[in-house]
Amino acid sequence: VALEEALGRVLAEDVVAKEDLPRFDKSAVDGYALKFENSIGASQFKPAIFQLTENSEIQVNQAKQVWTGNPIPKGANASVMLENTKKLDGKLEVWSQLAPGDNISRKGEDVNKGEIAAKVGTRLNPYHITLAAALGYSELQVYTKPKIAILATGNELAEIGTAPEGNQIFDSNKIMLSAICQELGAETIDCGIAKDNLEEIMEKIKKALQTSDALITTGGTSVGGLDLVPDAVNSLGKPGVITHGMALRPAMPTALAVLEGKPVMILSGNPVAAVVGFEVFGRPAVCRLLGLSRTEQRPSVKAVMARKVSSALGRKTYVRVLVTMKNGEFVAEPVSAKGSGAISTMTLSNGFVIVPENREGITEGETVSVYMCGNWKVE
Amino acid sequence: VALEEALGRVLAEDVVAKEDLPRFDKSAVDGYALKFENSIGASQFKPAIFQLTENSEIQVNQAKQVWTGNPIPKGANASVMLENTKKLDGKLEVWSQLAPGDNISRKGEDVNKGEIAAKVGTRLNPYHITLAAALGYSELQVYTKPKIAILATGNELAEIGTAPEGNQIFDSNKIMLSAICQELGAETIDCGIAKDNLEEIMEKIKKALQTSDALITTGGTSVGGLDLVPDAVNSLGKPGVITHGMALRPAMPTALAVLEGKPVMILSGNPVAAVVGFEVFGRPAVCRLLGLSRTEQRPSVKAVMARKVSSALGRKTYVRVLVTMKNGEFVAEPVSAKGSGAISTMTLSNGFVIVPENREGITEGETVSVYMCGNWKVE
Repeated sequence: VALEEALGRVLAEDVVAKEDLPRFDKSAVDGYALKFENSIGASQFKPAIFQLTENSEIQVNQAKQVWTGNPIPKGANASVMLENTKKLDGKLEVWSQLAPGDNISRKGEDVNKGEIAAKVGTRLNPYHITLAAALGYSELQVYTKPKIAILATGNELAEIGTAPEGNQIFDSNKIMLSAICQELGAETIDCGIAKDNLEEIMEKIKKALQTSDALITTGGTSVGGLDLVPDAVNSLGKPGVITHGMALRPAMPTALAVLEGKPVMILSGNPVAAVVGFEVFGRPAVCRLLGLSRTEQRPSVKAVMARKVSSALGRKTYVRVLVTMKNGEFVAEPVSAKGSGAISTMTLSNGFVIVPENREGITEGETVSVYMCGNWKVE
Repeated sequence: VALEEALGRVLAEDVVAKEDLPRFDKSAVDGYALKFENSIGASQFKPAIFQLTENSEIQVNQAKQVWTGNPIPKGANASVMLENTKKLDGKLEVWSQLAPGDNISRKGEDVNKGEIAAKVGTRLNPYHITLAAALGYSELQVYTKPKIAILATGNELAEIGTAPEGNQIFDSNKIMLSAICQELGAETIDCGIAKDNLEEIMEKIKKALQTSDALITTGGTSVGGLDLVPDAVNSLGKPGVITHGMALRPAMPTALAVLEGKPVMILSGNPVAAVVGFEVFGRPAVCRLLGLSRTEQRPSVKAVMARKVSSALGRKTYVRVLVTMKNGEFVAEPVSAKGSGAISTMTLSNGFVIVPENREGITEGETVSVYMCGNWKVE
């Protein structure tokens, strides 16, 4: 892709310096290039006097004006800052003593020819793009964006923008998972809503896999109840469902499968559980599909729990929290006044805490690691 | 915009709940809806016995199967989890005692009708979009993306993709500032490169302002040397340059101006100085133009300096550092072996430390606040 399109994409090649950067010795300041030897002993009270020249080569006791970034003329080995000089009758007073190389950006100082400026598998930020531009690249090889198909299931679901019938609710999971995948840099395919009907689910999964690199489903999976999606996946081919039922809360009904060599992530219909299921299993899979050299982890901070939270033994529990910086310390407030499936717990929180399987909760005042999904608040 | 296009955009309206979410009492589990009163005293050793019903209303000692998300039938006031029950000869054994409202997501529990689900000036993340979808929104009012014009100046600059002549270098600042603005959610306009010529710069600035909401220039500004861009801006109108020369290192030559009521940010030609100038002055301006209710601050962490750094008294100095988490503690390593204008110092660092004007540096082992531009490394 052209450099202009490369932001956020993942490098499919090493960016190698084809030449030194800078390509030549440059002045790092606005001032004058000269021979450092001629400035020895100079001070404001005892300036060294130089002849100004426009020539491309500097002789003894000569100085040439240079702006930041200008090449250092031949014969010069230092650059003096404008503010340490004074022009007087066509001559130049220099008020400070220089050392060899002072205020010069050396050829290759930034990157040497042959050096790797950015490695394959790197997500390109503005600085990588700048460095590639400075090195003369106008386009970069990046990985194709993976296509993630997203399918919702459930008789109770109505598409956004339609009029829901009776007890139907709007499907908000597809657009959520789609936004999360897009944020990571993937493309998404909206595969619509399947009714709770094995044949319809099978058909939609089959179709979804034809145009995608991975499939995410929500709903139609529970450990105690109906398992239409895992059943549909198993009816479609091998290996099908590899694992189903996780010691995670929420996200217990999550299942993982492979069909036609593509990962299939079967997430809960509960939006919060779907997010946790994606966080644990979907994020590493999508990072791999993007070509990233490693999974991009959520940044984590140490915070003090503002209130106790309870959890069930034997399950890794994801607790949503709002992290605030108070007097330079992070405080994590559990966002749990609402139901476990409440979407607003996600808009009100900015991170999550993981309570391990062997704990029954976290006590007030305990220091925990919070995985941040957004910026913390500052009070 | 349609919800599908709303990720990362800034809300121009409050998202108000047009109805309760959920719209009705729902089961939070797979199981059975019943009257809690009929479960009193129930345990695995002394189950309570219920009649199963398909009716829309529950009578005394009746239970109706519900899946997660199903409406709670009339007359029921609790839901029992499948795993605490057993079907036996058409009847249902319930093994646990319930309290009123157990395992029910109450009408309005997530968001109440009339409540603000997301405020004007919010940048929309996947969870805001999900909540809007669940509330029946299919589109949202967002602010138009501001258009930021970007102009580079300098005889020494060659456009990316061209063959540089002699001592020309590739212009890497325009694409860098463009990527940074795009990352924030703005649109950018590439206004090309102006030679170091007052008329040409004036003409290009005038043209740039016709199609943009703000202008960023790089190069052609220095405190000691040539000030072509500030001069051009001042020749074009009032108020022109408001301030020029900052007690910042790098980024000293930064100037701020207003022309035709639009902000003009005049940044250094040194890429690192341009980034610092943008960070300090451009970021708040672009956040304001985006319609954000406040400037999105860089997250900051407390880290221990791995090495001492020196700075000049009287200038706020921005020091690039690489932050690594080692044994749960953040360590900041200054990235300063290279020249001050070296672009690779930005690709090799993930944050910056600000040394205040009244300090001559930071000592080794001192704890500092680091403003993060990327994720920290974990060792």
